[in-house]
Parts: sequence; structure tokens; C-alpha cells
Amino acid sequence: MPDMTANIEIERKFLVAGDGWRSLADSGTVISQGYLAEQGTLSIRIRRYGERGILTIKKGQDARRRMEFEYDVPLAEAEQMLQELCPSPPLSKTRYRVPHDGRTWEVDVFHGVNEGLVMAEIEFGEGEEIGALPDWAGREVTDDRRYLNGSLYKSPWSTWGPAEGSR
Amino acid sequence: MPDMTANIEIERKFLVAGDGWRSLADSGTVISQGYLAEQGTLSIRIRRYGERGILTIKKGQDARRRMEFEYDVPLAEAEQMLQELCPSPPLSKTRYRVPHDGRTWEVDVFHGVNEGLVMAEIEFGEGEEIGALPDWAGREVTDDRRYLNGSLYKSPWSTWGPAEGSR
Repeated sequence: MPDMTANIEIERKFLVAGDGWRSLADSGTVISQGYLAEQGTLSIRIRRYGERGILTIKKGQDARRRMEFEYDVPLAEAEQMLQELCPSPPLSKTRYRVPHDGRTWEVDVFHGVNEGLVMAEIEFGEGEEIGALPDWAGREVTDDRRYLNGSLYKSPWSTWGPAEGSR
Repeated sequence: MPDMTANIEIERKFLVAGDGWRSLADSGTVISQGYLAEQGTLSIRIRRYGERGILTIKKGQDARRRMEFEYDVPLAEAEQMLQELCPSPPLSKTRYRVPHDGRTWEVDVFHGVNEGLVMAEIEFGEGEEIGALPDWAGREVTDDRRYLNGSLYKSPWSTWGPAEGSR
């Protein structure tokens, strides 16, 4: 039997308040991603991450803790899947790596139809502590499914009405 | 722009009549496969092929000619996806490679809920001819979507009623 604890991604997500993270960030990597399929709690994502193509399969009801399988694919094939196989135009963002308290946070600055949205996430291992939150970490949105990238792909941030609650 | 003629799979499929192919066949490879997702004409398959794990993305309305992307994955991860991420138990078959008229045909002998079904398929390149059919090739089923492996996964051959037409 495979090790069932393998391939588990544990993460938490926060809105970003202010620009305090920028002075610590790397130069950023442009990401374009689309979803080949989403069925129930399974999602299959194709991503251009800088010059890499990456195919990712995620499954799990709990946004904090999902099974994840990730594979490198040739960049040209990733581009072809983004253009020809995905149902919507790619979600676009720039990802910055930001060291804080001995860990690396990822800050995503969204573009296009999600312009204006800035989110930070931190991944950690089973049983690990998240550590101290940086002071630029705003409201936690880990459990708000609207902020899943797969949700933003179909229902971009710019289309949310004020009636849908505070951003 | 990527080359849009790349990653095109062209194939034809036939029921198999008799055992004439067996004397020419290799020793066979056991295949277990499941479908992570199927949406419209897109299917995402995970396969155990002997000791290999293979993830395949196919898209196309026309069963004769589909876009196909195929990637090797670690066997333990393929097994985990088959067991935990696929909605139904794996489809099981033994695949034999059978040389004929300068080409290699593949004969699939199905097991389990598809026991009794034997199908042959031949893949070829854009503009190539299929060559002479072997005498053990019976009725062509290329355009009968019931015989797609993705269909047999959800609606096994053993469950087809006589009312659904000749096998």
C-alpha cells in the first residue's frame, strides 16, 4: 500500500495588508494557470511557472489540507493545454517569495480580471507550526472557498458584488 | 505558438474475431486504469502499465483523432490515484502487442466486469495508411463511443443489454 500521508499539502491563506512584504521579496515569477477539470473536490491544474510547465492534481474538501500530485511537463505542452484544453482564459498572477520567521511565504499579486487582489500563503508539513504571522498578513481566508484559485478562475474577484461580503 | 499538429493520436478500433492473433503476440502487459475526470470530450486517465505509472490527458470529439498528452509518474502515486482519486474501481485488461503487415497492433483482453470483450487497435501517424487488416480483425467500432475505455469504465460491457444492439 502506498504511504497515505505522502502528497499532503497543508496551507493557510491570508489577504495582504500593505506593502511591508515588498522590501523582503524576491523579483517574482509570472504564473499563468488554468483548470483542465474540476469535479467535486478534485481539480486538475496546468500552470506556466516562469519557464516551467507544471501539471497538478489536488483533491480534498478541506482547503487547509489537500492531497496533491505535481509533475513537470514540457513548457510548449503546458501552453497548448492552457490555450486549447482549458475552458477559460488563464488566471494570471506574479508570485513573490518572502522570508519571514525562518519560513518562506508566497505572496500572489493577481492580474487581469483579479487585479487588485493580493494574497499570501504559507505551506507547512504535518504537525508543524505556522510560526508568527507577519504584520502584513491581514484577514485569514483559508476556509473561504471563493479565494481558491480554482474559484477565482471561474468567478474572478472583480466580479464579486458588495453583497457577497467584505473582501 | 506551439505546433498544433503535435500530440495528435490517430487510431482505429476493431472487435477481435478468433484467436489467430495469439501465436504472434508478445507475453502481454497487465493494465489497470481509472479516470480522474471526464468533462465533455476531455478525459484524464491514470494507468498502471506493468510497472509503469502513466497519466494521460486526451481531448477530442472524434474518436479517430484526439489530442493526447502523456506523462510517466511514479508507480506508487499512480496506485494512490487509482485507489483514492478515481470514482470507480479500475478497468483491467491485458494488452498484447501483435505485429502485422509491418505495424504493431495492440489487442486488449478485458477482465472483470468487461470479461469477454477483446478489442484490437492500431495507431498511426497523420497521413499514414492503416495497411491491410489482419483476418482476426472483426467489426470496426472506432466510432461507437460505447467502446471507448472511458465508457467501459462507467458502463462495463457485461451490463449492456441485448436491446443496446449487437456486440
